[in-house]
Amino acid sequence: MNRIYLDNNLTTPLTKEVLEEMKPFFTHEFGVSSGLYEGSLRADEAIERAQQQVAMVINAAPEEITMTASGSEANLIAVRGLAQARKGIGKHLITSVIEHPSVLDLSRQLEKEGYEVDYLRVDRDGFVNPKELKEKLRKDTTLVSIMFVNHITGTIEPLEEIVRVIREYNRKTGAKVLFHTDACEAFGKLPFDAKKIGVDALSMSSHMIHGPRGAGGLYLRKGLAPEPVIHGSDSRFNYRKGSENVPAIVGFGKAAELARIGVIENLEKVRGLQDLLMRGIEKHIPDVMLNGPRGEKRSPYNVNYTFRYVEGEALTLQLDMHGIAVATGSACASRTLQTNYVLMAMGRRHEDAHGSLRFTFNRYNTREEILQTIEAIKKAFDTLVRISSVKPAGLEQAIKTRPEI
Amino acid sequence: MNRIYLDNNLTTPLTKEVLEEMKPFFTHEFGVSSGLYEGSLRADEAIERAQQQVAMVINAAPEEITMTASGSEANLIAVRGLAQARKGIGKHLITSVIEHPSVLDLSRQLEKEGYEVDYLRVDRDGFVNPKELKEKLRKDTTLVSIMFVNHITGTIEPLEEIVRVIREYNRKTGAKVLFHTDACEAFGKLPFDAKKIGVDALSMSSHMIHGPRGAGGLYLRKGLAPEPVIHGSDSRFNYRKGSENVPAIVGFGKAAELARIGVIENLEKVRGLQDLLMRGIEKHIPDVMLNGPRGEKRSPYNVNYTFRYVEGEALTLQLDMHGIAVATGSACASRTLQTNYVLMAMGRRHEDAHGSLRFTFNRYNTREEILQTIEAIKKAFDTLVRISSVKPAGLEQAIKTRPEI
Repeated sequence: MNRIYLDNNLTTPLTKEVLEEMKPFFTHEFGVSSGLYEGSLRADEAIERAQQQVAMVINAAPEEITMTASGSEANLIAVRGLAQARKGIGKHLITSVIEHPSVLDLSRQLEKEGYEVDYLRVDRDGFVNPKELKEKLRKDTTLVSIMFVNHITGTIEPLEEIVRVIREYNRKTGAKVLFHTDACEAFGKLPFDAKKIGVDALSMSSHMIHGPRGAGGLYLRKGLAPEPVIHGSDSRFNYRKGSENVPAIVGFGKAAELARIGVIENLEKVRGLQDLLMRGIEKHIPDVMLNGPRGEKRSPYNVNYTFRYVEGEALTLQLDMHGIAVATGSACASRTLQTNYVLMAMGRRHEDAHGSLRFTFNRYNTREEILQTIEAIKKAFDTLVRISSVKPAGLEQAIKTRPEI
Repeated sequence: MNRIYLDNNLTTPLTKEVLEEMKPFFTHEFGVSSGLYEGSLRADEAIERAQQQVAMVINAAPEEITMTASGSEANLIAVRGLAQARKGIGKHLITSVIEHPSVLDLSRQLEKEGYEVDYLRVDRDGFVNPKELKEKLRKDTTLVSIMFVNHITGTIEPLEEIVRVIREYNRKTGAKVLFHTDACEAFGKLPFDAKKIGVDALSMSSHMIHGPRGAGGLYLRKGLAPEPVIHGSDSRFNYRKGSENVPAIVGFGKAAELARIGVIENLEKVRGLQDLLMRGIEKHIPDVMLNGPRGEKRSPYNVNYTFRYVEGEALTLQLDMHGIAVATGSACASRTLQTNYVLMAMGRRHEDAHGSLRFTFNRYNTREEILQTIEAIKKAFDTLVRISSVKPAGLEQAIKTRPEI
């Protein structure tokens, strides 16, 4: 069975071309940058090239890119490192209720350590409100961290407006509030310019764009100096110590380059897949509810629906039997048995989150795969609805008479 | 030119057999453990197998092994995580002046955050003194962290005695001081049993034993619960969140297995290389000084000498021209321009550290390579001594008349 992978916000397969680029650095060119011999020089050059490749994607300078072990580690260095470095100014941070766990759990940890954190709420589509941010900004605020694209619903947050609010506050009060964004789901997928947006720090992930795991990037605007968070041996990077993972860094650089070159074309292609899947689901499955916005403010890489009368976990397992990998917001699918906190924060009821399915694309997914997926969803839904105890009268009859795909 | 790599305490080349084991997990089996579909199950099984492979090396239970992104990250989780989790008991920690930067720099950072840290001194051979530890233990001490094998001199610290001192203190006072050891330079090289030594936590590295970078391990005795340090997506591990780097974990497991199987044989082989190199250097280079102990208390994987009348950096560069990669304690070789803090802590003078060379082996090094290295050291030393301004009278004549290798 040819498997269809639609859980690309969790991880993506490594591109063969990227793996080829990495290979010499595993066994032959295995140096790290800190030695005084030939192999180290070549490691150093390879890392520098990768910095350039990553910097070009977001219009940064290569030396503004710190290579990290993951997007989550980039978030850790940015949020903890900048918060700690600036605690002389204050210990107040602002983030949102729908951040990735690497920011949200970290924020809760920082609260335990004496920081005060405000969590911006979101509306039904997952947007934070720049007005609420304006109200929360204080003299002792040192950092605002709001994600670029939400990992569950594809909601694209209003970063420009957020930056405008922060800059206006800084201008008016003489404050120096910094802005960090977790761009792991935007990097290499949506074209953007970090300088134009005006972020101070921005996190990127390698394995979300067909690069290897074990690599991520942190853009730090020149002049920013987070307190040390990741300690280790000497490395090229001031704010991320430890022997560089050269193969992973080289792979990340190559993956960034490939993503940059194809970004518009991939976006158009994936938008087509998104349209196809959304139309298919809305046409064939009764009473579904889209989670996240429709149109320009939603990443084309994301589709998320709540299915009624059935459970997300059961639907996911049924789709797996059809060879299709998707994610669900069902509590049973998480080790902590929590229903999806993002959907709950968007005002969904417990049972709505429970019945939600997230489909996330990569640039290699095809229309044929999406058509097969729609067919499989229909079958899976039909199977489950037959045993459902919560279905309304007439539902099964309605399913039987629905149009063909 | 066939290059000879003798900087294996910095990193080691990945074994081809390990890379082969990793390959399917890059492009085909690319799941992480948290999905509800086939690929995730297989990722989960692969991680579990790697936990077993690592656990077997140190006689731990597989579930006591947390897979991390590096040995340094394991140190971070152990030291910061346990210190923070136990700060209700106290904020006093004990470590040594010769720890790896991932522990030493972290300790300094923790001091900034309000922890009190005592740094045990070492003698001329780099040993900490259990008696000094005994004197430093206090009611508010929560954690002692002393490395297993020093990364610069190969000194094997007296872990059993350290554990005895801590246990006695705990028994007498009712304290619950924990003991962590950074075993990155011991794991897979020296045979040992974590249960028998009686450590509470122990850090391991993958890329020191021909495994991939991006992987490390933390042994945490059952029942220990560090405060969260590495935040991220759901994972198999309670104390290390974030999508698992499955290829790296699989590679680490395989590398651990290969190291375990060959540990005695490799140790004997490397001991032979150590003897050969030490005898060669002492026979042919006048007035060298061994850094670190001689005999059973020194890791056979390490040789470290101070060369007089020449500079470590120049010697390293000369050896590089002969195709030989080694490390030096010279300040010029470090980005921070610090002379090697370990040698200074062992009572060496600035110029002794400056002229030091570290040779560290891997199990693939050969006698032929060591013979070539001795020959190259002679040539390099002769070249440099000719231009040296600090050589004693008669030195050049003495060199000319020395016996052949």
